[in-house]
Amino acid sequence: MEKIPYKIYLTEDEMPKAWYNLRSAMKNKPAPLLNPGTHEPMKAEELAPVFCEELIKQELDNDTEYFPIPQEVYDFYKMYRPSPLVRAYCLEKALGTPAKIYYKFEGNNTSGSHKLNSAIAQAYYARRQGLKGVTTETGAGQWGTALSMACSYLGLDCKVFMVKVSYEQKPFRREVMRTYGADVTPSPSMTTEIGKKILAEHPGTTGSLGCAISEAVEVAVSTPGYRYVLGSVLNQVLLHQSIIGLETQAALNKYGIKPDMVIGCAGGGSNLGGLIAPFMRDKINGDLDCRIIAVEPASCPSFTRGKYAYDFCDTGMVCPLAKMYTLGSGFIPAPNHAGGLRYHGMSSILSQLYDDGLMEAVSVPQTEVFKAAEQFARVEGILPAPESSHAIKVAIDEAMKCKETGEEKTIVFGLTGTGYFDLVAYQKFHDGEMDDYIPTDEDLAKSIASLPQVD
Amino acid sequence: MEKIPYKIYLTEDEMPKAWYNLRSAMKNKPAPLLNPGTHEPMKAEELAPVFCEELIKQELDNDTEYFPIPQEVYDFYKMYRPSPLVRAYCLEKALGTPAKIYYKFEGNNTSGSHKLNSAIAQAYYARRQGLKGVTTETGAGQWGTALSMACSYLGLDCKVFMVKVSYEQKPFRREVMRTYGADVTPSPSMTTEIGKKILAEHPGTTGSLGCAISEAVEVAVSTPGYRYVLGSVLNQVLLHQSIIGLETQAALNKYGIKPDMVIGCAGGGSNLGGLIAPFMRDKINGDLDCRIIAVEPASCPSFTRGKYAYDFCDTGMVCPLAKMYTLGSGFIPAPNHAGGLRYHGMSSILSQLYDDGLMEAVSVPQTEVFKAAEQFARVEGILPAPESSHAIKVAIDEAMKCKETGEEKTIVFGLTGTGYFDLVAYQKFHDGEMDDYIPTDEDLAKSIASLPQVD
Repeated sequence: MEKIPYKIYLTEDEMPKAWYNLRSAMKNKPAPLLNPGTHEPMKAEELAPVFCEELIKQELDNDTEYFPIPQEVYDFYKMYRPSPLVRAYCLEKALGTPAKIYYKFEGNNTSGSHKLNSAIAQAYYARRQGLKGVTTETGAGQWGTALSMACSYLGLDCKVFMVKVSYEQKPFRREVMRTYGADVTPSPSMTTEIGKKILAEHPGTTGSLGCAISEAVEVAVSTPGYRYVLGSVLNQVLLHQSIIGLETQAALNKYGIKPDMVIGCAGGGSNLGGLIAPFMRDKINGDLDCRIIAVEPASCPSFTRGKYAYDFCDTGMVCPLAKMYTLGSGFIPAPNHAGGLRYHGMSSILSQLYDDGLMEAVSVPQTEVFKAAEQFARVEGILPAPESSHAIKVAIDEAMKCKETGEEKTIVFGLTGTGYFDLVAYQKFHDGEMDDYIPTDEDLAKSIASLPQVD
Repeated sequence: MEKIPYKIYLTEDEMPKAWYNLRSAMKNKPAPLLNPGTHEPMKAEELAPVFCEELIKQELDNDTEYFPIPQEVYDFYKMYRPSPLVRAYCLEKALGTPAKIYYKFEGNNTSGSHKLNSAIAQAYYARRQGLKGVTTETGAGQWGTALSMACSYLGLDCKVFMVKVSYEQKPFRREVMRTYGADVTPSPSMTTEIGKKILAEHPGTTGSLGCAISEAVEVAVSTPGYRYVLGSVLNQVLLHQSIIGLETQAALNKYGIKPDMVIGCAGGGSNLGGLIAPFMRDKINGDLDCRIIAVEPASCPSFTRGKYAYDFCDTGMVCPLAKMYTLGSGFIPAPNHAGGLRYHGMSSILSQLYDDGLMEAVSVPQTEVFKAAEQFARVEGILPAPESSHAIKVAIDEAMKCKETGEEKTIVFGLTGTGYFDLVAYQKFHDGEMDDYIPTDEDLAKSIASLPQVD
């Protein structure tokens, strides 16, 4: 058999020309967004003050299989795509496993992650609609960086509300956004009504994604020519991120490889939903026998310990309700939680698939994640983001099981990004100052008790 | 004509199998290293306590054209090579220039630069010789990071002396090296005799590359099983870095393109010497009519304002003497100088080529460099290292000249790395706190006056 290279690159011509809509293959469609007042499904016109028109169509469309990638987005993709699918020969050797490990590396761009795939799409539709700018929130900072790059490229204003704890711990992320011309505000802030309210109720709070979303939405709906954009959770985001999975499958197909398992980290679900899209389709259609595994932090375990129910998407409760695995919109991970994957809920698409038994989920404590990250870095060269390292951890665990059983399984995981802006966390890990706070059942019962009553 | 893609990738099979030794094409060979005591050319056996045996052969060999890349180094290269040659369509459009701009991007690896190309080679020969570890110095930190990655991969100890000012300003660089298991000491330190001496003479000094080299060499020669390795200046380093130029030329040849100019930043010369290697050969042989341009910081102008003479390579004067364009071994760039390119001298190979009129050199002030960096980042997406941005600045200048004249020149430049660890400098630039200190003639006369007398 032909020797598989270290990195399988597609040519630019082989890059997918359309995004794949996984919802079109789902027998049970994801539950619709509900109006928080009436609890009726949100209509396009109700979403229009918040989101761009074309993105609303993508958000609500459960049937169309493929959405063509606009030429301008496609040209932008070519600056950093196709991304490599790497055969982890060095990791396999270090582990002594008969498993064949591949990872799709999305970190080779300045945002340092896969987030750019959706940022450029959303910015493109905003500009096409004649808007002046967009608002958003960011936690660890990858999404805010990605959006600022996309907006800079297209000449749009970009206002980012950055979770305060990250704003203070990651001044360099802020500086990159500034290089790309974005306006970055620590959240909660005194620049919005909801920010003032949250600060009055919780003085000294270090913020959360839920707060930052509320502030960004408020500014979008109250500023002429602005709309709000979001880097995860939404159906449209998973649609754009399908390019990850489509490229991965195309690269594997070149060598006739079918994965035995596909592993991805899961916060809101943007990477996982994109990575698994074509594999899940094939699994649903009975064409592929493959485990699909979501990996989440033990400190923010929405799949493994959350409730599948309608919930608020934001702390300020200004957004539509979404049905998802959730820890409650008031949930905030412990301060020692490093990196992203800190959202209280999970993509409705992934939540439905998980509820249907089509995918598995595991949660892992963060010191184990950093151990896996360091092990990976030393043999594969790439310094991984903490988020991505959740997938590394489980990929290594699965590869070690293969070592025990002697099975030559094919493991594919998503390496979503690099950890260049996460070195404070690495330092804590090296200095033995990192611990594994895991929320108690009482903690979760309390935050989940805040769920809205929806019939 | 076939449309040229955004990124020209070679396949792994097309990656060069051997390094090219530019000295073999030079009519005037670079001047030999001299024994600092006798002023006689250094013999291999005199270099053996400091350098690895195989690397000494490479250092002294002016005739062999090609050195095969060992299989293990080649396999390591495959983790991040071939690197892309990018057509800067977006930059061309933003500038409105008829010039065709290409850049060879070496930043897509965790060291964030081209330095890994030589680090893995040097670490490989050290391990093959049965050594226990290596010592080195690092300034901005790319080289130290690269060497720590290579040593971690091959199971060698790695001791890095990091210029104190960088050690303090770049704690994250230090943390990456620690992730890869390196031992990092701020220089000058009290752990070496020469460090103690320098600290006694210059209490409170923030260090220099020259000091750090002296300390690293001292530890190498006084610790059994250790040798010293260096990331720039040396002939062997330019040899290993020739892979940059060979890949660049191979990618251009796929589309029948010949460059009108090749531009690279120059500190000690590792990137420039590697990038230009095959183009300079063709120029020397009369097969290519091409300008070759070195770009250096106005704050450390060894080509444009230095003297071509034998000089000490280090502050402690323990190393052999090298003939080079130099500012004197006591020269230290002003504290406001950001990034690398801070060595007082320049590769002997490049010095000879420059003296022979085969290449040009220009110096640029750093605020201009950061302006070009930001302009580039906003349209090409990549956040460039300050070092690399010197080449960007001159590439843009040349492209703008083409706009005036209407000439469709082909410009190739080296984008050596990314600026993720240089955001303190970017912040100063954004805040208007960066200035352009340029050494006075008196400053330079003073440091150049320290040159040794060699007949």
